[in-house]
Amino acid sequence: MSEYSHSDGARRPLIYNAFAHVTPNHHSHGFWRHPEGQHQLDFHKLGPWIELAKTAERGCFDVVFLADVAGLYETSSGQWQQAARTGMQFPSHDPAALVSALAAATNDIGFAVTSSVIQEHPFSFARKLSTLDHLSEGRVAWNIVTSYLDNTARNYGFDKLPPHDERYVWGEEYAEVAYKLWEASWEDGAWVADAARDTLVDPARLHAIDHVGARYRVAGPHLVRTSPQRTPVLFQAGSSEAGRDFAARHAEVTFLPSRTPESAANDLADLRRRAVAAGRHAEDIRAIVMLSPVIGSTEAEAKARRAEILDSFSLDALAVFWSGGIGVDLTTIDPATPLTELREQNGTRGSVRAFIDAAPQGVVTFGDALRKTISAQFAGTPEQIADEVERWAAAGVAGFNVVPVTTLGWWSEFVDHVVPVLQKRGLMQREYAPGTLREKLFRDGPHLPDRHPARRLRPWAGKQAAALSASLA
Amino acid sequence: MSEYSHSDGARRPLIYNAFAHVTPNHHSHGFWRHPEGQHQLDFHKLGPWIELAKTAERGCFDVVFLADVAGLYETSSGQWQQAARTGMQFPSHDPAALVSALAAATNDIGFAVTSSVIQEHPFSFARKLSTLDHLSEGRVAWNIVTSYLDNTARNYGFDKLPPHDERYVWGEEYAEVAYKLWEASWEDGAWVADAARDTLVDPARLHAIDHVGARYRVAGPHLVRTSPQRTPVLFQAGSSEAGRDFAARHAEVTFLPSRTPESAANDLADLRRRAVAAGRHAEDIRAIVMLSPVIGSTEAEAKARRAEILDSFSLDALAVFWSGGIGVDLTTIDPATPLTELREQNGTRGSVRAFIDAAPQGVVTFGDALRKTISAQFAGTPEQIADEVERWAAAGVAGFNVVPVTTLGWWSEFVDHVVPVLQKRGLMQREYAPGTLREKLFRDGPHLPDRHPARRLRPWAGKQAAALSASLA
Repeated sequence: MSEYSHSDGARRPLIYNAFAHVTPNHHSHGFWRHPEGQHQLDFHKLGPWIELAKTAERGCFDVVFLADVAGLYETSSGQWQQAARTGMQFPSHDPAALVSALAAATNDIGFAVTSSVIQEHPFSFARKLSTLDHLSEGRVAWNIVTSYLDNTARNYGFDKLPPHDERYVWGEEYAEVAYKLWEASWEDGAWVADAARDTLVDPARLHAIDHVGARYRVAGPHLVRTSPQRTPVLFQAGSSEAGRDFAARHAEVTFLPSRTPESAANDLADLRRRAVAAGRHAEDIRAIVMLSPVIGSTEAEAKARRAEILDSFSLDALAVFWSGGIGVDLTTIDPATPLTELREQNGTRGSVRAFIDAAPQGVVTFGDALRKTISAQFAGTPEQIADEVERWAAAGVAGFNVVPVTTLGWWSEFVDHVVPVLQKRGLMQREYAPGTLREKLFRDGPHLPDRHPARRLRPWAGKQAAALSASLA
Repeated sequence: MSEYSHSDGARRPLIYNAFAHVTPNHHSHGFWRHPEGQHQLDFHKLGPWIELAKTAERGCFDVVFLADVAGLYETSSGQWQQAARTGMQFPSHDPAALVSALAAATNDIGFAVTSSVIQEHPFSFARKLSTLDHLSEGRVAWNIVTSYLDNTARNYGFDKLPPHDERYVWGEEYAEVAYKLWEASWEDGAWVADAARDTLVDPARLHAIDHVGARYRVAGPHLVRTSPQRTPVLFQAGSSEAGRDFAARHAEVTFLPSRTPESAANDLADLRRRAVAAGRHAEDIRAIVMLSPVIGSTEAEAKARRAEILDSFSLDALAVFWSGGIGVDLTTIDPATPLTELREQNGTRGSVRAFIDAAPQGVVTFGDALRKTISAQFAGTPEQIADEVERWAAAGVAGFNVVPVTTLGWWSEFVDHVVPVLQKRGLMQREYAPGTLREKLFRDGPHLPDRHPARRLRPWAGKQAAALSASLA
């Protein structure tokens, strides 16, 4: 087939994000020790990031998606030493600081900035993203997160993270403040630049937001003139009940943790039901999944390569990753321990038990269970990777967070060998659409649709529509 | 003469900052209305800033100094409409967001980011600046400010600004948190990247900071690996008692508001006394003043040009500027009002009276008093400008914040016509010194001297010196 349709019937290309993190060790835990992985240690420099952005743009990727954590993974409370030692998502540099340089080096690709509600005041955050939306000519997205590491919380004055659902309540207010600044402060046409009247901005069309909420009081007006997209494109990933409701209310694209196309289809249907219940249209929310293939010119080569790569991963780092995620120290368990033995231990606590039980059938040792969590579960030729993409797309997913199996150098391999096959089969765009990132991604925009909660915060929208009607009458 | 010495005897070139603000109207109030000023309206785009950075680097400037305000100037409480109308330092975009793009476009020039303690949590701020110090290969500076606009305070949850001296207490704690992250968290040599031992960072040489203070509790460790300068170069401007003490403790370069070389010499002597009292050396603190000349090929041409430029300024915008600064609405006073009449009015309040009394002799109307506050008081040929520079340097100042009289285009005029004369007379560097910004500026570094308060926060420094002594014994 030469074209590809979304399940909602619209003919838009699948979305591909180049998923990255300003750290030596995003999901390729310990691969910095491999000779091929040495250049990951240059993560702190500008050069490799400009190269990544240019390579991804050469491959018609939609977005450089910058993940982030604002703290260290801990094996138990206050114990971040193992994460430091193995370099497990540490160091973790500020992703937003990269964006203007990457925008200057590219023309079309977008930039998603991950930022937690805990790490920056919404007035400063909204100002920064609007500034970047100008500098990039409308190519900025926000990945809204609410943090999951206690060390992050302790960097910002808390003893530990606020409870999960409370963080989403916080997220609601945070987004509301940002929306008010982006959408409600500057009316369309407030910028007049009328020299004769000594009027740069029409004060009658500029508004304080006077937000008063549980956590924030923010006067406004927004300090940045209306940017191309107003609200940046909104990404979000939430799998809990509260997280799904939040995604359904806010996200334009949500990241699903689904392991099979079937479960992705179910998860997407659930999200869309929630979105409709929140006053949006079902197709206002799109779902993407992870794609992290090992590439070979034959299947055998790909599989051999995958085995070699996985062997070079650090089990210690993997154990730290999961310890930080589930809140129990897994680094003390010998990787050679059989799962049967672990299951029988009285001391095995709930979340460790859940981790063990999640291991696929046939896994014998704890170390193998860890290895099975590595992103790169799929290995194949470019044609086989395209088949895999097609299976997911048939289930209704709108695209992929493409995670490099190993290093930054992996990107040119993907772009040179996989992208042409995807393009030939109509599974990936061959060129960029014009306009802002929102227009490129959704063939809609540049602003959020009026049914999005951000747009419903505009007190002046009704007034403006009335004035327009009156002027046409 | 062919070389120029500082008053402290060291032969270091004078410092020149290209002073700018991401706004259409920094100190050339209302000049956007003039045909030559139209391109100031492109302040939100990346192109003009890259051009400015490259032009300044062509002219061997040391630093692009990015000023900032995080709120609107108000004529009275909550009344920001006049500032919006006249575009008086409004809009005001995020300066830090520009830095990586400007660093990518240049090789040597530094970037000073103005950031108030009110606008960002110190953990995030320190992380951002360390990231930028890496991306720019050690070319970042911080201009520490404590805000002076009530609108800024109301954007961050306050009813109004905390009292002046309290803001400096806040500044002390804020700087302390940042210093601990920059200087005390990572020991030298903590980054080991030892593949055989699966050790990227040596946890024994990485430290939590566990800061507990009046405003902040911050665990750490710092998330960014040791950057070239550790602490960025520190700029600060404070003229009150508390402000001078703060500058004397922290600043490497301070901005003096002095109007004559004689008062600059006095102010500098005072600052250096305070610095010595704080345990630093007198020469650890340097003073710069403003330089904002109108350039002509003859004196007559320069003066005619200055008159034309000043006529095109907006008196409304100037009145807004001073209203925001002194907290009294000056926009209601007719510019034609004679000062004598204003002095006689019973209603003339204290700070208005002070403003009027500060007008130079011979000024008749309120409008003329406003015009006399415009930065561009000096007009002359490049040779005359060099004479002026020499007069200030003879008083012991270390350099200049060069403020463009009109527009971004003014920079190439300065670089093409004034810089060669300054260089010929040994008043400006002809090439950059190697190394980080601190090394380039002070021929010292790359780190702060150990007597700076930031360096005294390193609990491991003594331990390390002892280990070194032991290994040498």
